[in-house]
Amino acid sequence: MATTKKTIILFSGDFDRVMAALIIANGAAAMGDDVTIFCTFWGLNILRKEKAAAAVGAAGGNGSGRKSFQQNAVGLMMPKGTRHLGLSKMNFAGAGAPLMRKVMKDKNAMSLEALFESAREQGVKFVACTLSMDILGFTKEELIDGLEFAGVAAYLGEADEANVNLFI
Amino acid sequence: MATTKKTIILFSGDFDRVMAALIIANGAAAMGDDVTIFCTFWGLNILRKEKAAAAVGAAGGNGSGRKSFQQNAVGLMMPKGTRHLGLSKMNFAGAGAPLMRKVMKDKNAMSLEALFESAREQGVKFVACTLSMDILGFTKEELIDGLEFAGVAAYLGEADEANVNLFI
Amino acid sequence: MATTKKTIILFSGDFDRVMAALIIANGAAAMGDDVTIFCTFWGLNILRKEKAAAAVGAAGGNGSGRKSFQQNAVGLMMPKGTRHLGLSKMNFAGAGAPLMRKVMKDKNAMSLEALFESAREQGVKFVACTLSMDILGFTKEELIDGLEFAGVAAYLGEADEANVNLFI
Repeated sequence: MATTKKTIILFSGDFDRVMAALIIANGAAAMGDDVTIFCTFWGLNILRKEKAAAAVGAAGGNGSGRKSFQQNAVGLMMPKGTRHLGLSKMNFAGAGAPLMRKVMKDKNAMSLEALFESAREQGVKFVACTLSMDILGFTKEELIDGLEFAGVAAYLGEADEANVNLFI
Repeated sequence: MATTKKTIILFSGDFDRVMAALIIANGAAAMGDDVTIFCTFWGLNILRKEKAAAAVGAAGGNGSGRKSFQQNAVGLMMPKGTRHLGLSKMNFAGAGAPLMRKVMKDKNAMSLEALFESAREQGVKFVACTLSMDILGFTKEELIDGLEFAGVAAYLGEADEANVNLFI
Repeated sequence: MATTKKTIILFSGDFDRVMAALIIANGAAAMGDDVTIFCTFWGLNILRKEKAAAAVGAAGGNGSGRKSFQQNAVGLMMPKGTRHLGLSKMNFAGAGAPLMRKVMKDKNAMSLEALFESAREQGVKFVACTLSMDILGFTKEELIDGLEFAGVAAYLGEADEANVNLFI
């Protein structure tokens, strides 16, 4: 069977939806497909370094790298990386995701972090949406290494070549 | 490159998801694609006139244009147009979307209203789902001009011709 | 027109999103398309028998059929079947879905249960995601009859043959 291409727009940063996206991506990559995950909005959170220094007023120059008060507020309130995501439903003030993690561990299911690492190792391409980064005030330095940075035109170019395009 | 077709089912009425849909639609239209956005359920809210007269018991005749008490309640509680949408996450009792708007303005990003107007100007086709209108009790008079009205069969016909079909 | 294939990943268990999925599935089936709905995560709830006996510690053997304390907790808190689903928005502590049901009944729209039955009668294939079942602790006995059971590889195989693939 010919290699086919899949794209996923990962808009959500919910634990369960991120897990669904990574399971599909890993499955497709294991079958030899090219897979690209475009992380936009809340989906960008999975690409944030857990211990990135806050860039509060750090960047100078043209000012585009400088965060506004609002952006700092948004950035501080949102999770960094996959370890602190909540569930889309039944989150129980944060207890839902740990409950789900416990169940997955008991069933020997891959953790969210393992799914993420597996996807990276299998060559799934992670793209950070530059427009979302700009709005949310995320700098490249705050995000993990090995990403591509692109906008909607790049997404559409890849989607045109793909035979399955999902918005999650 | 040949013109291709894209369809988006806009089910959500969340500020951030609507923005994602409009960014994709504008991008595709700018690349010469035909784009259709089918607004269903909460997505219909972006098509409501801001100052439409409430149709409380106004329509006579066959009664199909007359709203039930429940439909009036639903209609009154939901936002009209793009200016009053909330965020899907971190809405903070309504403060989230204004925060996002402030950040976008500071970054010179297009506002939701500008994205919507741009999409219309670029010829993105907005279709109001008639079944959803019927359930929610929205009349054609309450919705903005220049829309098409259709059901699931029309959507499927267009999706069959498109190469990217998203549900947002 | 040649028969085409559609797939829907039903990730959500929200009344309104399930309804959207079933309306699309029924419409496509009525047009002669092959339709497969892959129920994952919260979407599995629509496949649960309303009165299935809880499998608390019931299964023996290899232990894989035995539910953990957490799985029982999760299972007890989630709805069984389509009759107890909440809305994704404006749920009003459970009042939203009954309100929507009342409006639909007044408008003679098909109920969620009727849409589900119609989809089954029209040959829409419902697949229960085995990985999600494993994580959530759902056994085959707790789910309704006539389902298929499969994982992500089967989904991708079908999606490769389909011309419309949605994630709801």
